[in-house]
Amino acid sequence: MDIKLSNMNRLFEPRSIAVIGASDKPTKLGFHVMLSLTKGGFPGRITPINPGSSEIMGLRALPSIADFPDDIDLAIVVLPAHMVPGIFEECLAKGVKGIVLITAGFKEIDDPKGADLHERLATILNTTPVPVIGPNTFGMINLQANLNASFTPHFSLLKKGVIGLVSQSGGMCHLLSFLAVRDDIGFSKIVGIGNRLNVDFPEMVDYLIQDTDTEIIALYMEGIDRPRGLMETAKAHRGKKPIIAYKTGVGDIGNQASRSHTGSLAGRKEIYSGAFGQAGILGLDSVEVLLDTAKAMAVSPLPEGPGVAILSSQAGPGIAGADMCQMAGLRIVPFSPKTQQRINDILPPLALRVNPVDMGPAWYDSEATVGILQAVMQDEKVSGILLFMMFASANVDCIKGLSFLLKDREHTKPIITCLSAPPGIWDKHIKRYEQAGILVNFPTPERAARAMINLNRYRSLI
Amino acid sequence: MDIKLSNMNRLFEPRSIAVIGASDKPTKLGFHVMLSLTKGGFPGRITPINPGSSEIMGLRALPSIADFPDDIDLAIVVLPAHMVPGIFEECLAKGVKGIVLITAGFKEIDDPKGADLHERLATILNTTPVPVIGPNTFGMINLQANLNASFTPHFSLLKKGVIGLVSQSGGMCHLLSFLAVRDDIGFSKIVGIGNRLNVDFPEMVDYLIQDTDTEIIALYMEGIDRPRGLMETAKAHRGKKPIIAYKTGVGDIGNQASRSHTGSLAGRKEIYSGAFGQAGILGLDSVEVLLDTAKAMAVSPLPEGPGVAILSSQAGPGIAGADMCQMAGLRIVPFSPKTQQRINDILPPLALRVNPVDMGPAWYDSEATVGILQAVMQDEKVSGILLFMMFASANVDCIKGLSFLLKDREHTKPIITCLSAPPGIWDKHIKRYEQAGILVNFPTPERAARAMINLNRYRSLI
Repeated sequence: MDIKLSNMNRLFEPRSIAVIGASDKPTKLGFHVMLSLTKGGFPGRITPINPGSSEIMGLRALPSIADFPDDIDLAIVVLPAHMVPGIFEECLAKGVKGIVLITAGFKEIDDPKGADLHERLATILNTTPVPVIGPNTFGMINLQANLNASFTPHFSLLKKGVIGLVSQSGGMCHLLSFLAVRDDIGFSKIVGIGNRLNVDFPEMVDYLIQDTDTEIIALYMEGIDRPRGLMETAKAHRGKKPIIAYKTGVGDIGNQASRSHTGSLAGRKEIYSGAFGQAGILGLDSVEVLLDTAKAMAVSPLPEGPGVAILSSQAGPGIAGADMCQMAGLRIVPFSPKTQQRINDILPPLALRVNPVDMGPAWYDSEATVGILQAVMQDEKVSGILLFMMFASANVDCIKGLSFLLKDREHTKPIITCLSAPPGIWDKHIKRYEQAGILVNFPTPERAARAMINLNRYRSLI
Repeated sequence: MDIKLSNMNRLFEPRSIAVIGASDKPTKLGFHVMLSLTKGGFPGRITPINPGSSEIMGLRALPSIADFPDDIDLAIVVLPAHMVPGIFEECLAKGVKGIVLITAGFKEIDDPKGADLHERLATILNTTPVPVIGPNTFGMINLQANLNASFTPHFSLLKKGVIGLVSQSGGMCHLLSFLAVRDDIGFSKIVGIGNRLNVDFPEMVDYLIQDTDTEIIALYMEGIDRPRGLMETAKAHRGKKPIIAYKTGVGDIGNQASRSHTGSLAGRKEIYSGAFGQAGILGLDSVEVLLDTAKAMAVSPLPEGPGVAILSSQAGPGIAGADMCQMAGLRIVPFSPKTQQRINDILPPLALRVNPVDMGPAWYDSEATVGILQAVMQDEKVSGILLFMMFASANVDCIKGLSFLLKDREHTKPIITCLSAPPGIWDKHIKRYEQAGILVNFPTPERAARAMINLNRYRSLI
């Protein structure tokens, strides 16, 4: 392993951390960083560095990193921009393996001094293999290591999971995390790369591809300094792990704003979507779609083909799902004669028994739902299943019928659902099924269908 | 008022109800209807009709509606299809003002007997002004009257509000209601029109336009039997109340399924979107967008023009919002010199101070956020404001700053927000602001932007 990658591994899994600019004043970011580390349960050693304090949050503080007797793996820097070059020299002298540079005020500001400072830091780092996350970032979180190296302690509310998020916007990381906490979606790592001194999208993708905790790589980007670098990295890893990306800054105004935000060019939508596709990156177009797709990929196998079955306990949601699938080029396949016969044996001849199946007439009957689902799962023409069930007091127990899937270890087709009920009625069943990886649930049939569509889009890229 | 409309009013606000087919067996829909009415707190008289019972849920049951000594305003019918013609004759003889016909098995089934029965019922009703909701429906709910005339008691969990929903799909009504319960969105009425014997979209629109509890009319439709009737009704009422519609059955497969589901033709997307626009109906394309738009319209004034200001405490969400607005033709206007000066006085020259404003450098500072918002609200070029704030522990109190809006009774511009925080931190503030009607909040910046876009689309239709 090259030394930079091994340093990246140490950066994300440090044994000891120094917080340079730690503070016990709640108005300082250095206070919030200390809170994140300590409340987040980081098991290694945390050393606050502040020449004006001897103790911060019950931990002995030192005047400088040089005063620490042992090795420091990770330095988190929250001092004003003008002090950072000096601090970097000290960090390199100390032999730190990696730096998280939270400080803002570099090339994102109007003042040319910011860009100059950025260049000075780049020069200092030039001949070292020390990776720096930032500057102008909230930090990063490695949930699997209980490491919250950010100024927001609430990232530690997140569940451990397999999605690795790399973002140019701290706001988007916060937003995605709050949504994920509400929806019980887990992450492996969340990294705000900010202005990208020497860790940019290509370096993060290289790192996350070999990171065993991460199965899905989700990117939020505004502009890319080295688009070819990212595309080549993604191509080199094509098919190893899904890489999905949401890119903003595609309109003129957004583009300008993006340029100012993290100091890079944004560029037009068409250009990026073409390049993403060629590199095997799945381009997506909103926070919601990014999170929905990551969630689906984290739970669900990929479909082997575009043939989809739609089973709905009420016709309306099935029709909505069929519309979306069809417009996106999925195939609502006719069932094999055997499957159709099994469904005809279960459902009365009242309603639509072909694909999309209106299971309405059987909706009291959990066994009928299960029978239809089993038949369809065994149909070779069907690669993915959309299952929609809206609660009504008469069908309350239908959700329990799906528990047969917990034992059916042979099924390898994605089952994406919209199972909807008033709060507290079906939630615990749905959560149990999702945690067991047998289905993935969304709040509306269209979002479920879109997840299926995006699994298919990704399959066709690799 | 014509007698049919006065009967509609009585149907939705009955003083006494007969449930024909009431049951005390949980396997029967007649049981669930009784539960909905009684648990829903209907204040009028409820009479179960069932020749086999003398009492159901503590209420005296009668063998037939003819045995009831007083007037019956509303008959809810849950008997098998073949019995319905006879029951209808009895209802008309009794002088009921309206009927909710939950029973399925009419023209939605393959068997031509279903269509024949439908025609028989139509003939029976032909010369009467008695409106019938259904057949093949879960029923209807008038939340303002505590009337849950459906087979799902959980509709009574909904908050009273100003959105009137008319749907061809019971599944979609259930889904929209469960989403609304989670998101605390209120409804005036929810009506499943099913196979539409003599109450179809035009009749429901006519009714809801004059219904003082309803301010927004939301339609879910699969096919329309008399599209011209709906378009003419909508045109006649153009601008009185927003009418928004989600139409499925637009693909070939969805179209077929829709035809089967409620026995009507669906038709192509382009045809309907053109016709909707001409009639002043705002066409929308998913459950989520329908509910988001209804929510925005229920809380927010309409913008007077396409000029929008985007204020974001973190750049990323602002860029995402700007992209969406610009692609939809909204104008991210340059501020007036006076507004720009006020913002420049508040924000340091670090970041983007023009529209879209990155309030990042002021994010600890609630007063700065308020000052910028006030400046922008007073700018004549700005017709609507998108405000995005993602929580971080350093900006926890910024949400309280918005309380100045509670006193500012002069503002008449929509403020649509994405204020996002971990559960339990900002929720009660956001709820308070939404209930006071000063802003409307969405989970992502793109959904907030889309709501602003749809308010503008509606404004340009009327």
